[in-house]
Amino acid sequence: MGYSYLENVELEEALRVYADMLQSMGIGIEAEEIKVQDSFGRITSEAVFANISSPHYNASAMDGIALLAKKTYGATETTPVILEEGVDFERVDTGDPLPERFDAVVMIEDVISLERGRVKLISAAAPWQHVRQIGEDICASEMILPSNTKIEAAAIGAMLAGGVLKIKVWKRPLVGLIPTGDEIVSPTDCPREGEIIEFNTSIFSAMLKDWGAAAKVYEIVPDRFPLIKEAVIKAAEECDLVILNAGSSAGREDYSAKAIGEAGKGITHGIAIRPGKPTILGVVNNRPVIGVPGYPVSGIVVMEKIFKKVLESLNYGKLPERKKTKAVLSRKIISSLKYKEFVRMKLGQVDGRFIATPLNRGAGVVTSFVKADGLLEIPMNSEGYEAGQELEIELLKPESEIENTLMVIGSHDPLIDVISDLMRRKYPEEFLSSAHVGSMGGIMAVKRGETHLAGIHLLDEETGQYNASYVKRYLGNDKVLLLKGVKRIQGLMTAAGNPKGIKELGDIAKNGLSYVNRQKGSGTRILLDYLLKKQGISASDLYGYEREEFTHMSVAALVASGSADAGMGIYSAAKAYGLGFIPVCEEAYDFILPERFAELEIVKRFIILLRSEEFRIELERLGGYKLESPGEWPG
Amino acid sequence: MGYSYLENVELEEALRVYADMLQSMGIGIEAEEIKVQDSFGRITSEAVFANISSPHYNASAMDGIALLAKKTYGATETTPVILEEGVDFERVDTGDPLPERFDAVVMIEDVISLERGRVKLISAAAPWQHVRQIGEDICASEMILPSNTKIEAAAIGAMLAGGVLKIKVWKRPLVGLIPTGDEIVSPTDCPREGEIIEFNTSIFSAMLKDWGAAAKVYEIVPDRFPLIKEAVIKAAEECDLVILNAGSSAGREDYSAKAIGEAGKGITHGIAIRPGKPTILGVVNNRPVIGVPGYPVSGIVVMEKIFKKVLESLNYGKLPERKKTKAVLSRKIISSLKYKEFVRMKLGQVDGRFIATPLNRGAGVVTSFVKADGLLEIPMNSEGYEAGQELEIELLKPESEIENTLMVIGSHDPLIDVISDLMRRKYPEEFLSSAHVGSMGGIMAVKRGETHLAGIHLLDEETGQYNASYVKRYLGNDKVLLLKGVKRIQGLMTAAGNPKGIKELGDIAKNGLSYVNRQKGSGTRILLDYLLKKQGISASDLYGYEREEFTHMSVAALVASGSADAGMGIYSAAKAYGLGFIPVCEEAYDFILPERFAELEIVKRFIILLRSEEFRIELERLGGYKLESPGEWPG
Repeated sequence: MGYSYLENVELEEALRVYADMLQSMGIGIEAEEIKVQDSFGRITSEAVFANISSPHYNASAMDGIALLAKKTYGATETTPVILEEGVDFERVDTGDPLPERFDAVVMIEDVISLERGRVKLISAAAPWQHVRQIGEDICASEMILPSNTKIEAAAIGAMLAGGVLKIKVWKRPLVGLIPTGDEIVSPTDCPREGEIIEFNTSIFSAMLKDWGAAAKVYEIVPDRFPLIKEAVIKAAEECDLVILNAGSSAGREDYSAKAIGEAGKGITHGIAIRPGKPTILGVVNNRPVIGVPGYPVSGIVVMEKIFKKVLESLNYGKLPERKKTKAVLSRKIISSLKYKEFVRMKLGQVDGRFIATPLNRGAGVVTSFVKADGLLEIPMNSEGYEAGQELEIELLKPESEIENTLMVIGSHDPLIDVISDLMRRKYPEEFLSSAHVGSMGGIMAVKRGETHLAGIHLLDEETGQYNASYVKRYLGNDKVLLLKGVKRIQGLMTAAGNPKGIKELGDIAKNGLSYVNRQKGSGTRILLDYLLKKQGISASDLYGYEREEFTHMSVAALVASGSADAGMGIYSAAKAYGLGFIPVCEEAYDFILPERFAELEIVKRFIILLRSEEFRIELERLGGYKLESPGEWPG
Repeated sequence: MGYSYLENVELEEALRVYADMLQSMGIGIEAEEIKVQDSFGRITSEAVFANISSPHYNASAMDGIALLAKKTYGATETTPVILEEGVDFERVDTGDPLPERFDAVVMIEDVISLERGRVKLISAAAPWQHVRQIGEDICASEMILPSNTKIEAAAIGAMLAGGVLKIKVWKRPLVGLIPTGDEIVSPTDCPREGEIIEFNTSIFSAMLKDWGAAAKVYEIVPDRFPLIKEAVIKAAEECDLVILNAGSSAGREDYSAKAIGEAGKGITHGIAIRPGKPTILGVVNNRPVIGVPGYPVSGIVVMEKIFKKVLESLNYGKLPERKKTKAVLSRKIISSLKYKEFVRMKLGQVDGRFIATPLNRGAGVVTSFVKADGLLEIPMNSEGYEAGQELEIELLKPESEIENTLMVIGSHDPLIDVISDLMRRKYPEEFLSSAHVGSMGGIMAVKRGETHLAGIHLLDEETGQYNASYVKRYLGNDKVLLLKGVKRIQGLMTAAGNPKGIKELGDIAKNGLSYVNRQKGSGTRILLDYLLKKQGISASDLYGYEREEFTHMSVAALVASGSADAGMGIYSAAKAYGLGFIPVCEEAYDFILPERFAELEIVKRFIILLRSEEFRIELERLGGYKLESPGEWPG
């Protein structure tokens, strides 16, 4: 088999050894001849030379008359030169060939017509004026493009102008994708319990397309060794490269490694990166075969950091690299000394600098890659970074998009998604990015200068008032404004129809039902703690008090599935899932806005949208909101 | 018709008026429903919400046993907890549903098996540990993507994970392209005199593809008004937008303007930009129709600066913008006060800053767009810029490519193309960019710090030696090295077989034959002037002395076509065109290299290639070179 189980080879070393091996085996992409008109975005496999000159004849560059310049020498207003058509000159239009005996063109505007086809000129012409001479643009046999050059639009014109009709380019490598796993099913909108939707090959296909390769997706192969081996052999016969995508179970990569090893030769199994460690590099039928781990986040990282490099090593030229930018880390990141780690980062431009915040590091959370703006690489032998450090981040989105993004970090409410969508519809050049870290998290984000706005709903037990006293207490020395948001109804969410007859919090504790809670620092958690205290219920009597979710929607989803009997949340979340709902109170959900951002165009637009009719309509549809002039400044 | 002939409307004004008009007429792109797997790179026309949660059931995140956490409380090495299979726990693999009565998973590694299906645990489990809870990644009804969002690879995964199978995206607008002109012919490698190859629609199709639109190219329409009008009407019925590409003759845009005006409504004809002034904006059959000028450079600028904006104004979202960079202008640029001008620029990174040099401003020179690295916008009412000014340049190539480009400015020799191609083959991350400005131009480029290397061949009349004395005279105070290039044969090129029996320069003057010269400051021009002086021939006796070309190839192309009887140039150019050749002398073509660049990796690679066997083989193929250790330091 050639490799020992799960090594921990350094990434660069693994790639170098593998590339050397592929090269020594003569494995590469072949060239093919294609029509120039079909060559946009392809890569030349050899230099392209012009077949003809452009222009290929001396052409008039103007409408006018063609003549011999020396016949016009000495022409002035007082000593005009008279010329005879057919003898001294001929009429030409732009693009017409210059008759062989002439060497210049005079613009029709400068020609004074006389009778009997004669004309008068009152200034001399210079030889070769207004003539596009042969080869002005391109000379026959000149190189138009060197090898390994990506073909842009103008180059297509230059090649056609040079009489080139077909060129040699590198074939688009065909990549076979084999999904495996007993639990894996093709995309569906109603998977059964225990079924996992297979979407990795769809992600990988898009990435391959972006890199100029073509994808061939095979049927899902169950977790049976002979079938996996057979699938690898078949794909390595039909494709230029093969990706074997393991099921997500811990032992699955063993099957992959063994199948690759038996079908051909395994080179490496286990690379010192996180996520992505169980990657396999091998060769079957003289084709590179790469075992990619099953979790989507690991898969994307392995595609980016390993597969892309393998493609490049196949005489395929250099694929475009992502831009990097400097950003200040908003919070400490800890990393293992044993791995090079890739962390998805949220970036925001606040106060003219990029602030980077690490996202969920779970390998199963594909949405973290949708939310991510950048990727931070933490080297091996590094323990991580401290908050405030300036780091280099690889950008996953255009810098201009991040610069035009409004950051809203704090408590979760679906209304933020409503505004985000309205923003994209009304102001397509602007973006909104939100993170759900709870109300207290929002206050801290303002304090650390990470966000433009923070949504909060914090009940002051003493006054019964919302928000203002918290702002004063935690941000008293910061110049911040409180922007009016909405009133919304909080309550207990239960299964549809409330089958367990829950009337109040006490019923849950009393009847040993299961509860699902929100995270510490969220306004809803603070509300729950207040209610428990008021009603004299101990947290330890509430089964599920420790079960923490980050959004109203997550709580609703767990209640809807029956995994919990109740949870506290807002009406709109309950409505979205068709749940039972016992109203508890009405609360104020407002926005903290540092004064220095109030004049930003993007903030003004956020406020315009808060005040808009479209916003009111959308919130009515969601339900459970009261809009008393949102977007106004209270008092 | 609605517009007066050739206005001079400011660009922004013209675009604003046109966009407002299209909007008021309700002209926009429609949405269509497509499969999520086919949506890579498309743009959402409405927000996408999850249909199901992901995971959609509580799933084990490990191989192990599922149990109730509270049954493990208090477990330690000394007080282990014993559990019974089927009663207290069940075995689960990663991805398996968590049985409903349990709330945690213990990894198999932490489970000690006993007999009769019982197990022992020596540490307590926390509730919900190693469980991927419902909605961990996505909650049903949550927004996955807002409207007007470009779909990236990870988003495809997120949508499929959320049970979304189809989504609404903006249709790819279908753009009809109508080429017109009597002289225009489809791409060919043997056009006749007077025929112009039509390649604009191929360039535009590639640009449209890049912008997510589809192109439909119509047959070439001759310059007859009724046919042009008919073609516009047909295309406006079949496509979402129409581009009418005028022939290159001066009056052709009139036909276009009239055709658009009569088929529908003309809005603007004549926009204050250069190139691109005769652009036409109109509406036919509720479809935007744009008249684009015929010269390729004008066409590309109008597509970039006008058509792209029109696309964006059709609720199509914002297309990616080109990055900008700061660069120092190497020479003065003069611009008209009446136009906003777009100038193609060559950029080079020398001494850590970008140097920008304007390229040929001829509207017919499509290769200038292949060579261009950036576009400089000179506003209306500006007379241009002075050398040394720092300007903002829009990048046409990736910044990293320009940073990895070796600049070679100076005398022309085909060997530079040979090295450029070898560079791309051996070091695909590196690029070579050359400009042909003659030997003296090369010396000046070194002096101004615009180039890494300059190729020169300059004969010192007094000593009969090449190059060294010029370097001393012009760059005496600069620290520069002279790198050995090649010896090459200069001579007189004549038609194949030398039908006019030219033996020496004197024959050309004596027999009134026509000559084609090289530009002032080129080594070949200096050689010619030296020979004329030596042979006592006056420049005014040589017909064509004023006819200047910039490369050996251009001279050869003119001689080959019969447009000139002779020209001075190197043997390889004569050989490429199969010309007659009368050797005149052997000269040294060497490279000036500022000392401070000698240690640059890319310069070292250039020298390695100069010394390489591949280079020797290629030059032998070109012919007329003698290689005496090129790439060595003389003396």
